[in-house]
Amino acid sequence: MSTSETPAKQTIITIVGSGMMGSALVFPARENGHTVRLVGSPLDGEIIDACRKTGRHPKFVKDFPAGVEYYKIEELDKAMDGADLLICGISSFGVEWFAEYMLPRIPETLPVVSVTKGLIDDGTGQLISYPEYWARRAAPRKLRLNAIGGPCTSYELVAQDQTVVTFCGEDLETLRWMKGLMQRPYYHIAVSTDVMGVETAVALKNAYAYGVCITVGACERVYGIDSIPHYNSQAGAFGQSMLEMQKLMRLLGSSNDEALAVGIGDLYVTVFGGRNRLLGKLLGRGLPLDAALKELEGITLEGNVIVVRIVKALRAWAAQGKVDLAEYPLIAHLGEVLIDNKPANIPWEAFVAEKR
Amino acid sequence: MSTSETPAKQTIITIVGSGMMGSALVFPARENGHTVRLVGSPLDGEIIDACRKTGRHPKFVKDFPAGVEYYKIEELDKAMDGADLLICGISSFGVEWFAEYMLPRIPETLPVVSVTKGLIDDGTGQLISYPEYWARRAAPRKLRLNAIGGPCTSYELVAQDQTVVTFCGEDLETLRWMKGLMQRPYYHIAVSTDVMGVETAVALKNAYAYGVCITVGACERVYGIDSIPHYNSQAGAFGQSMLEMQKLMRLLGSSNDEALAVGIGDLYVTVFGGRNRLLGKLLGRGLPLDAALKELEGITLEGNVIVVRIVKALRAWAAQGKVDLAEYPLIAHLGEVLIDNKPANIPWEAFVAEKR
Repeated sequence: MSTSETPAKQTIITIVGSGMMGSALVFPARENGHTVRLVGSPLDGEIIDACRKTGRHPKFVKDFPAGVEYYKIEELDKAMDGADLLICGISSFGVEWFAEYMLPRIPETLPVVSVTKGLIDDGTGQLISYPEYWARRAAPRKLRLNAIGGPCTSYELVAQDQTVVTFCGEDLETLRWMKGLMQRPYYHIAVSTDVMGVETAVALKNAYAYGVCITVGACERVYGIDSIPHYNSQAGAFGQSMLEMQKLMRLLGSSNDEALAVGIGDLYVTVFGGRNRLLGKLLGRGLPLDAALKELEGITLEGNVIVVRIVKALRAWAAQGKVDLAEYPLIAHLGEVLIDNKPANIPWEAFVAEKR
Repeated sequence: MSTSETPAKQTIITIVGSGMMGSALVFPARENGHTVRLVGSPLDGEIIDACRKTGRHPKFVKDFPAGVEYYKIEELDKAMDGADLLICGISSFGVEWFAEYMLPRIPETLPVVSVTKGLIDDGTGQLISYPEYWARRAAPRKLRLNAIGGPCTSYELVAQDQTVVTFCGEDLETLRWMKGLMQRPYYHIAVSTDVMGVETAVALKNAYAYGVCITVGACERVYGIDSIPHYNSQAGAFGQSMLEMQKLMRLLGSSNDEALAVGIGDLYVTVFGGRNRLLGKLLGRGLPLDAALKELEGITLEGNVIVVRIVKALRAWAAQGKVDLAEYPLIAHLGEVLIDNKPANIPWEAFVAEKR
């Protein structure tokens, strides 16, 4: 909009974490003409080497837009110099690293938006979102931490599939500004101040995806692994997931059901891909947890972490008389499978029991 | 439970309509040892002939349990003689026939449960469920009309896949009694007195399934018809469907979100099968409505009927200032496609617009 002769300063967006989701966000950011600096985490050195050499992320089938800058973590200062927005693109397994290494280096004036999904026990049994966790770790410094939720696989974002996400944070003006920087004709951004709701929803979807995928595996057990898909039982578990997610979100302080819709969309996409689906299917086919995890070659899954955290919290609250576990039969069963090593066996009748 | 020498009278369940869903319900009913009488509608004569001859429904891959009785519509009196429960297994295109032919023949004492799904304009612009419609048509006689909702494809029920449905009606004791008659280790029945909620949910899912399936077709348009499935856009439309269904259900008088969960499970299953999916995909691929319907060989789809009814009602209410159409962008767009012959073009930005 500037009409002066001096070109307006380009917005600088620094993305820390060159995994698939962090790297996918390079596309909308750079397509909008911003300066984009992609910084590898300490584990991402080879990815950055490859990006510099080929102009493409090793896991993508499409080159980055021209002009993207690549940095190794040792060059972080340079990558953050003058940055207007910091995108945290690390996975939930980098949460501690981000807290220890990155937080002290982030100025209080620099807005941050994170794609990291999950909930964490704050040490007292309370489950909090990563932005909240980082905010506490950064205290007394007050950082501007925001997050992205919603159904978005990195491949499909790179392919420019129509995608709907939600940017959530405390300050609506900051959210609108970030939306303006990142939105594209294929990347549609809602804004929400219900941070706890959105973060809870996107964390829970990883847990409940197991519930749906166990039914897929249970059908494969009956009909064979290459049988045509069956849907009654998936749909039964999906509907139950919605009910339990809504109750859990309200329990954890979500203020409205728009965040639930984010989680339901996210659950839908999670059911159809990735390692969460595979583990759920293996359990549903009748494999004990050990054997199923072995097939996954020991990869720790975010869904497991969240099931364990949620169910341990629910059990503690139930022991204190604060919740009735019977209202959460699906995730309670997932806890039996993932914590107590019981075989997967969806408690269907509990879904239709009348409320006392 | 009877300890007397005289065997207890067997419960007699008469199912009217030998389409796939009515016929599928023969299985749990007969497996539970009840006398089951399957009555063909006036269009079902050949099906009844085939059932008598082969002991199997022509569209099923599995024989009926032994001892099922088959009746043609001319033998209705005999089929209803002494019946304890009447199951209405006709499709929504038989609603008028059921009102005219069946209602006068149903005693006020005989409980009825219907699998027919839909909403109908009561003539004043108000949308009502079929049980409500039939109740009004039967007045001043007061019939005991109940309904079944939830994700259940007939094939999978026959295959004994785990299935969760909801029986809804005004009287909880009747619902519990019907549940006792019909439940099986694979057929799980919730009961609900939120008739309007359940009926609205199961009707709406046929409408919103188009929304999700249009995105499937739109991806096929870009990537080819046999491309691997893409999910971001399906999930975006699915989440939006949940939000709009919840609002519509509250608008139409649903009292709680358990009925919404029934609808969400039902939407999930509907997206993956049947002619609704095919029409949605064809529209999403860019076919005009006429051409898409032609590929479906003129079969009228329940989803079309419900979209037209809902959107006409919403438009009328919007004209009266009662609702804001901007809160229902997805179904409003489906109305543009199915009523106004506009090309399918999902209004993604409307999904993320901030509320005024």
